[in-house]
Amino acid sequence: MSQIAFETWVQQELQRVEAALSRWVPADAPAGLGLAMRYGVLDGGKRLRPLLVRAACEAVAGDLAAALRAAVAVELIHAYSLVHDDMPCMDNDVLRRGKPTVHVQYGEAAAMLAGDAMQALAFEVLTPDDGDAETMPPALQARLCSLLARAAGHAGMAGGQAIDLASIGKPLAEDALRDMHRRKTGALLQASVLMGAATGGCNPTAHAALSDYGAALGLAFQVVDDILDVTQSSATLGKSAGKDLDANKPTYVTVLGLDEARHQAQALHQQALQALSRGGLADAEHLRLLADMVVDRHS
Amino acid sequence: MSQIAFETWVQQELQRVEAALSRWVPADAPAGLGLAMRYGVLDGGKRLRPLLVRAACEAVAGDLAAALRAAVAVELIHAYSLVHDDMPCMDNDVLRRGKPTVHVQYGEAAAMLAGDAMQALAFEVLTPDDGDAETMPPALQARLCSLLARAAGHAGMAGGQAIDLASIGKPLAEDALRDMHRRKTGALLQASVLMGAATGGCNPTAHAALSDYGAALGLAFQVVDDILDVTQSSATLGKSAGKDLDANKPTYVTVLGLDEARHQAQALHQQALQALSRGGLADAEHLRLLADMVVDRHS
Repeated sequence: MSQIAFETWVQQELQRVEAALSRWVPADAPAGLGLAMRYGVLDGGKRLRPLLVRAACEAVAGDLAAALRAAVAVELIHAYSLVHDDMPCMDNDVLRRGKPTVHVQYGEAAAMLAGDAMQALAFEVLTPDDGDAETMPPALQARLCSLLARAAGHAGMAGGQAIDLASIGKPLAEDALRDMHRRKTGALLQASVLMGAATGGCNPTAHAALSDYGAALGLAFQVVDDILDVTQSSATLGKSAGKDLDANKPTYVTVLGLDEARHQAQALHQQALQALSRGGLADAEHLRLLADMVVDRHS
Repeated sequence: MSQIAFETWVQQELQRVEAALSRWVPADAPAGLGLAMRYGVLDGGKRLRPLLVRAACEAVAGDLAAALRAAVAVELIHAYSLVHDDMPCMDNDVLRRGKPTVHVQYGEAAAMLAGDAMQALAFEVLTPDDGDAETMPPALQARLCSLLARAAGHAGMAGGQAIDLASIGKPLAEDALRDMHRRKTGALLQASVLMGAATGGCNPTAHAALSDYGAALGLAFQVVDDILDVTQSSATLGKSAGKDLDANKPTYVTVLGLDEARHQAQALHQQALQALSRGGLADAEHLRLLADMVVDRHS
């Protein structure tokens, strides 16, 4: 597949996901809550998680409509975590996706509630009670809820953020840093792949391959994030650059140095591609190119 | 059923729910997150929602093990909402269930994360991946997730809290006040009843009766809460009394006066009991006595 064909696919997928988010995140939720939710999730972000869900669905010839719901749900969890993470009691950040953060725009209370409602909405989207209910088997609904809840919760993202908070100003060994990132960022990225896989038939070999791919890609993403945090400007990133350094947080760059961090990103990239090649997957081309995109990105 | 037999049932149920919460809310979640979660949900509270789930399960001769999971899940949602609601950017409260609030004890960042992880955990508990998975049909898991997510989200609890925030210092008409309370408190109480009902077979008549019971009881609970806020001490309530008045929030007492608020509580009590009598339910005795308990309570 040519790079142009891939980029066309990405653009088409981004439009589908954006339209679905706009349809399912209600503008008319009470007292401005819907506006704050929409502000926190629409018009921004790389949408890497939705792209992984949809590409993994393609890789197992799964149900693309179910994968669209899963894509929206996982992006809602990611977006809510950013809304809460940016608040003054956490990272106290004022810039996100090139815009003022939600609490700057709507106030802290509204930002907290919007994040809370976005997490609930993710599970609403996964358990449709409209016409789609009949096309999405209850077993798939339950499986997607299970994967997403575990990736978002204490053993996954929230647990990783707790370690992150507790690590400020402390030296962290490489394996502790890896554990933190696996939870904080990796769990939801891996879940994106596994949720896509759940929408189709998936034998144990394919499942293991996709799981390994998601784990390697999830860690690669964070290593690259740590590199970009010190090598790129805030304008390029659309968020505050150098913030981990300023906050005295351990990163792959502070723990390993820039050269070794780059080396690890490449090694994880290769691990992800090798995992895919073991899976006997119907069509893993988009997953392959997404791995390239994650490692070669500049923002 | 005698009052003593009812109180014995309540004590037994409270022990079961407490043991289940203690089993499923992990002490060993990373970096103290589990301790903050446990502090926020164990050893306190009336556990009205779990009691409603279990009593509704009995009323339809449902699966009591599934109802225990539902009871824990709904209490986790309730508890997380209190943790977030008490934070400085919301109600800024320092006392809850007779103890310092979670953010006073563990800090604001930990309180926010603990609340976030408690919401995710609710959906983890509803989608077991251990031995219980086989005893809980996927369709029931999906149905429970659907009911809980909608009661917790923008159309339910979070939406009601947004209205609550926006109403500070404003006169509110009775119907707007009722709408706020139906969402803020009523939605989760009604969902407790419907989740219990979902664990068993439930014909449309029984379902409608339980839904009406849950709606009337949910509103009655909040009217009584508003009454107790001005008539009881902080020591009796285990939380700060008079806080709505201090915060200049509209309540049933400020909008209707104390006498009319008491009258409405009694009327809603009767509505709840009448709904039950229409349901043709196998055993609605505990639901009936829970309605009495909600209206006659002193804290």
